[in-house]
Amino acid sequence: MDTSQTAERPEHSQGGKYTTKGKEFVRDTRYIGTRITADGADGYPVEPGRYRLVAARACPWANRTIIVRRLLGLEDAISLGLPGPTHDARSWTFDLDPDGKDPVLGIHWLQEAYFKRDPEYPRGITVPAIVDVPSGAVVTNDFAQITLDLGSEWAAHHRDGAPALYPEHLRDEIDRVNRKVFTEVNNGVYRCGFAGSQEAYDKAYGRLFAALDWLEERLTGQRYLVGDTITEADVRLFTTLVRFDPVYHGHFKCNRNKLSEMPALWGYARDLFQTPGFGDTVDFVQIKQHYYVVHTDINPTQIVPQGPDLSGWLSPHGREELGGRPFGDGTPPGPVRAGEEVTAGHNPLVPV
Amino acid sequence: MDTSQTAERPEHSQGGKYTTKGKEFVRDTRYIGTRITADGADGYPVEPGRYRLVAARACPWANRTIIVRRLLGLEDAISLGLPGPTHDARSWTFDLDPDGKDPVLGIHWLQEAYFKRDPEYPRGITVPAIVDVPSGAVVTNDFAQITLDLGSEWAAHHRDGAPALYPEHLRDEIDRVNRKVFTEVNNGVYRCGFAGSQEAYDKAYGRLFAALDWLEERLTGQRYLVGDTITEADVRLFTTLVRFDPVYHGHFKCNRNKLSEMPALWGYARDLFQTPGFGDTVDFVQIKQHYYVVHTDINPTQIVPQGPDLSGWLSPHGREELGGRPFGDGTPPGPVRAGEEVTAGHNPLVPV
Repeated sequence: MDTSQTAERPEHSQGGKYTTKGKEFVRDTRYIGTRITADGADGYPVEPGRYRLVAARACPWANRTIIVRRLLGLEDAISLGLPGPTHDARSWTFDLDPDGKDPVLGIHWLQEAYFKRDPEYPRGITVPAIVDVPSGAVVTNDFAQITLDLGSEWAAHHRDGAPALYPEHLRDEIDRVNRKVFTEVNNGVYRCGFAGSQEAYDKAYGRLFAALDWLEERLTGQRYLVGDTITEADVRLFTTLVRFDPVYHGHFKCNRNKLSEMPALWGYARDLFQTPGFGDTVDFVQIKQHYYVVHTDINPTQIVPQGPDLSGWLSPHGREELGGRPFGDGTPPGPVRAGEEVTAGHNPLVPV
Repeated sequence: MDTSQTAERPEHSQGGKYTTKGKEFVRDTRYIGTRITADGADGYPVEPGRYRLVAARACPWANRTIIVRRLLGLEDAISLGLPGPTHDARSWTFDLDPDGKDPVLGIHWLQEAYFKRDPEYPRGITVPAIVDVPSGAVVTNDFAQITLDLGSEWAAHHRDGAPALYPEHLRDEIDRVNRKVFTEVNNGVYRCGFAGSQEAYDKAYGRLFAALDWLEERLTGQRYLVGDTITEADVRLFTTLVRFDPVYHGHFKCNRNKLSEMPALWGYARDLFQTPGFGDTVDFVQIKQHYYVVHTDINPTQIVPQGPDLSGWLSPHGREELGGRPFGDGTPPGPVRAGEEVTAGHNPLVPV
């Protein structure tokens, strides 16, 4: 099996045990690095209809891929499977689908697709994963590479007006920002929440809020993280920010302040939320259920909080004053594909 | 042993188990109702120097008594013992005192004083408790009656300028407000945090925020809860409000919003905090340690959050515009008694 080392790794999610007494949280950074490319170099060529993206709405790493697929208009080229927010002993399941099975893959556990790839697959069953439909096997769960490849390798299948999320001339800066956002923020919240000692938590908290202060300052004077349009960098930060007040603030003890108490970051997050392709992928109910139910070692009662009040996500953010053109020379995506809408009532954009 | 039924009861605090699966939290409302009175009807006459108030700073029910003792200037009449914020298997201890013993009572566990009163004492070892120093036995742990009796039975020993916290002509209204504040807010936060089922939590959350909305409206137009001076009603609400953002918001999942997001309540809480006798009794470090370390069934890692940022407690509240005279015809208390100051750094009023 082809694996590779990178600095990024989705959350591992088996067994209900996420903290290790006395230890700092360290993310396992090994994953299946096979790529789907235009030239098919890894044996998996770009081919519309052949692959299924499995991406739980609850998961921030998976949420990125749902956003990028929609921004780029890849809905016809790559179908979408949506595991429910909680796990059973075998991790992510298709428990929200009819008969508890993914209608395309015909499986109940995502684990089955990992075992088709490697019967001895030894690591976490993670989302996002892209599955080769004919063989039923996972091709890749390398979430950082997945969104980049959707942008480049799948370019021939983008919709008209798809934005350039990783433009050549900004790549160095996007990479630099992404590295810091990953280690300090995307993964930083987990480092707080899964700390196995007070000391590990205290350090993690300091790192996280130092990074958020840096972002607050950066975003006070500019509308987007890099350049003057939405990019891959905004997608990656957004999926953490949207979970901050509902989950990370309380459940992960990232509680110096709420996101809504940092004016630039809160304006930035609302701006993106209200941009087609971002907020319309977010299911706050599933997000809260996932964290509060799955992490039994930090929330043994499994009770899911009713708060926070989410109505503020639709309030005016005033970020237009900073200039910028969200889609650059492109256009916003149209309405969410029928059948892929967030459940009514799970998001203030989709009232009951 | 003399006990009585009332609607109020301090938190029970033995064994680390606070939730019962499937059950709503119901506070045990039985406690030792013996009273210390001017006429000594229960066998315990008012007598300066004879009694010791044992009141952990961490505990909201005990915090009330520390505030009232200070507002009334009873420091010379009734001494103060301060258990540390966490428990061992026998509940509250004097682990912060030299050699781990209360310097006046000479005991390590408050339980010893309960057992002096009743060797078979069957219920929670709670603070506040007033101990008869000569016999070493608890006289009462009836916290609601304690503050009222400090105001009335101990009147001969009040300082000059002590405020009337329970004035005759306002008693009906104070009682009415106190009843609602107790069931819906003081105890309401515990009903959220110790809920043993999602259904019990959901109901508790609705009740709590309905009551906070009622208070928000009431306090929008008036500076204090009842009348135009501080009363017993303000003391009772304050000790819950001051714990809201540091503990109840996250740990007890009372997270529709922070206290600091409710303008009238937040202004009211800061106004009291900045009033001599209130904020200067508050130890935020001990408060957080207590809840996060003791309730192992809802925070098994026992990690104590670093947040929230508390600097806002000293910001201008603007409540003077509503009129009112905090101490009525009386005066504020002087500086905190030497030896009874909150540890430097544990409260924004007492910088390191």
